[in-house]
Amino acid sequence: MRFVDIIEKKKENHPLSKGEIHEFITSYVQDKIPDYQVSALLMAICFNGMNEQETAWLTEEMLYSGEVMDLSDIAGIKCDKHSTGGVGDKTSLALAPMVAACGVKIAKMSGRGLGHTGGTLDKVESIKGFQINMDMESFKHQIDSIGLAIVGQSGNLVPADKKLYALRDVTATVNSIPLIASSIMSKKLACGADTILLDVKFGEGAFMQTKEDAEKLAKTMISIGKHFHKDVRAMISNMNEPLGNAIGNALEVKEAIATLKGEGPKDFYELCLKAGSIMLMQAKKVENETEARTMLETAVHNGSALQKLIDMVEAQHGDIQMIKHPETLPQAKEVLEIKSREEGYVEAVHALSLGTLAMQLGAGRQVKEDIIDPSVGIVLQKKDGDYVKKGDILAYVHINHTLPPHWLDDFYASYHFTKTPVEKHDLIYKVIKE
Amino acid sequence: MRFVDIIEKKKENHPLSKGEIHEFITSYVQDKIPDYQVSALLMAICFNGMNEQETAWLTEEMLYSGEVMDLSDIAGIKCDKHSTGGVGDKTSLALAPMVAACGVKIAKMSGRGLGHTGGTLDKVESIKGFQINMDMESFKHQIDSIGLAIVGQSGNLVPADKKLYALRDVTATVNSIPLIASSIMSKKLACGADTILLDVKFGEGAFMQTKEDAEKLAKTMISIGKHFHKDVRAMISNMNEPLGNAIGNALEVKEAIATLKGEGPKDFYELCLKAGSIMLMQAKKVENETEARTMLETAVHNGSALQKLIDMVEAQHGDIQMIKHPETLPQAKEVLEIKSREEGYVEAVHALSLGTLAMQLGAGRQVKEDIIDPSVGIVLQKKDGDYVKKGDILAYVHINHTLPPHWLDDFYASYHFTKTPVEKHDLIYKVIKE
Repeated sequence: MRFVDIIEKKKENHPLSKGEIHEFITSYVQDKIPDYQVSALLMAICFNGMNEQETAWLTEEMLYSGEVMDLSDIAGIKCDKHSTGGVGDKTSLALAPMVAACGVKIAKMSGRGLGHTGGTLDKVESIKGFQINMDMESFKHQIDSIGLAIVGQSGNLVPADKKLYALRDVTATVNSIPLIASSIMSKKLACGADTILLDVKFGEGAFMQTKEDAEKLAKTMISIGKHFHKDVRAMISNMNEPLGNAIGNALEVKEAIATLKGEGPKDFYELCLKAGSIMLMQAKKVENETEARTMLETAVHNGSALQKLIDMVEAQHGDIQMIKHPETLPQAKEVLEIKSREEGYVEAVHALSLGTLAMQLGAGRQVKEDIIDPSVGIVLQKKDGDYVKKGDILAYVHINHTLPPHWLDDFYASYHFTKTPVEKHDLIYKVIKE
Repeated sequence: MRFVDIIEKKKENHPLSKGEIHEFITSYVQDKIPDYQVSALLMAICFNGMNEQETAWLTEEMLYSGEVMDLSDIAGIKCDKHSTGGVGDKTSLALAPMVAACGVKIAKMSGRGLGHTGGTLDKVESIKGFQINMDMESFKHQIDSIGLAIVGQSGNLVPADKKLYALRDVTATVNSIPLIASSIMSKKLACGADTILLDVKFGEGAFMQTKEDAEKLAKTMISIGKHFHKDVRAMISNMNEPLGNAIGNALEVKEAIATLKGEGPKDFYELCLKAGSIMLMQAKKVENETEARTMLETAVHNGSALQKLIDMVEAQHGDIQMIKHPETLPQAKEVLEIKSREEGYVEAVHALSLGTLAMQLGAGRQVKEDIIDPSVGIVLQKKDGDYVKKGDILAYVHINHTLPPHWLDDFYASYHFTKTPVEKHDLIYKVIKE
């Protein structure tokens, strides 16, 4: 079959066969079909989609385009979690130690941030000496011994995704549920965990703009999980306002540490408890959510959760003093107070805008080559639903240089006020098991 | 603006601006944007289309990507016609001399055939010595002196179309009304005629499958014509069965000669009279269709139309004896009679199938590199609506080699019979002026 006929078939909205999807991925990875044919097919997929079966086959072909990790020689159920990304999302840094402190093995490969969203690797690298590269044996050994590891993704996993993602990025074909689902799931499955919890975010600071799209993406990924006989569950969570208060790498590490001491922002702690409960149930450590929450709260209150973070940092050659004394984490030269010019109830705190503003301070990358400044960022003092008087502090801004022009105006424009009380939006919209 | 944003815009179904379309075509012709981005944009255009204004701008950018012919130093109105192609379509060979014999200047650049449809250039090359390449000055001189010329398209016209068409061909992005319309019209406008008559064919042997799509394509091209202040009109004609009786290059030249003597197939002659009438009206030679038909019929009956063909062949170094004595045109070694195995009324004679069968004999090209045998082909004796008895001759097949396996079965399968009389379909469905 000529590849143009495969494109034509998808363009005419007929489902592709397993053989055709195999041909697509294997030939592309081997450079046997040109980018211009693949980009045309990707665009046709953006319009006509793929059914569950096609999406599972696509994920399978991508998964087996490279190395697949085998964690079977580590005893017990190995759990993984993945967030589709957002502003202020430091969940892994608090959640993984909490769950590991309850006796669950966490094998986590993370990514870097680009644009307005941050990446877990960039955050952990605020900790002096922390190593994100590790060979397979050390990774497995660390999970087995201390119960968790957070590392960068091995170079040999899912080469098909690397090639496809680079092409999608420049051909306006990123935004397609089957393409996003197969990209995420092929990478997650390649990491070899037994269970996966997905945090699929919606809202202006997220990949998916609406609840409905986020739910559709979550269900697609759960269906892929079924194809591979993996326990995959998903939370659908709100990313219209930043998660927690801190945006910026070292600032987020501090917030995660505070949370592990029971002193973190309420919304963020709640998300960790909810996610942790699901993970404990996936790992069959508990019977129900109530039991799970008690176990997680105990781990926070008795210090064992924080200790897990310290153990992990130590195992990965990071400076544990920075965890024990968070004030020694990288600090910006100056901290500005931003005071409200208005009075009223906060109706919205725009995540996309704040993510971009933090990036402009040096907390994120506009292009892959940009270097991150771990110390800078924003710490919000007022969020959705809060009542604010003129002169109240809205946020602290941590900077090493003067603010860029228009920065302050853009910051103020990120807050919307109203005269009447507003109800705080639920952070977690839904949990989906299948 | 980054090109990926232009793709995104079209993907999100927003119309592109003149500047964006300019950027697209000029950068692509200059190799400044890669094929993989262009193919993604083309696929997005296949799905979301382009409005009238975008399509006109696209045509304009393509047109001015290369040389544009200037026929203004030839006195009078210069007319051109274009068929979207079909099986047995030898219209130009009879129509152009008929109209030229009525004193209208015909400047015609033609193409070659591919797949099941034939090309005018391949047909005229059945005539020994006929030259289809001519420099600009000779082309204009010939139109001025004898009133018509049929030549190949100059290499410098519309380079954007050449590049885009090659990419569309391998990325399943051929089938899009704005892309087809801008491709045809940019080439026609580059040829410099004052009026254009389009024969837009529909049916299984044509590019457009349905009347409705053919009409949409025709209206799009007429709207492009308006943008350039050109008198563009269109006929929508049926290509479910082959046009006339002959399929194959020299066989079609013979049928065109017979038609110029008033001895051609009725359907084909009628198409020529209808098309010729529109062209005479476009050239302002006549007031109405009745006047036009009389003038064209006179040109056929008094021999002046045939003489125009002879004049053209002579001017282009072809052997005029072949026109005067058509039996000297290339002849196949063997002529087989195909007799009907069934009795009944012919309900359908499938053009697509017969075009493909003629191609298999050597009358057409499967791929661009194939060499055509001018002598082979099929001459139908029974068409849509005819009553046929068992043993009646359905067609003569002109061959130089034994028939390919299954050829005869496929031939029989091209005819559909029914017991009850069927009404012959109208060949011309509609004429559109605006």
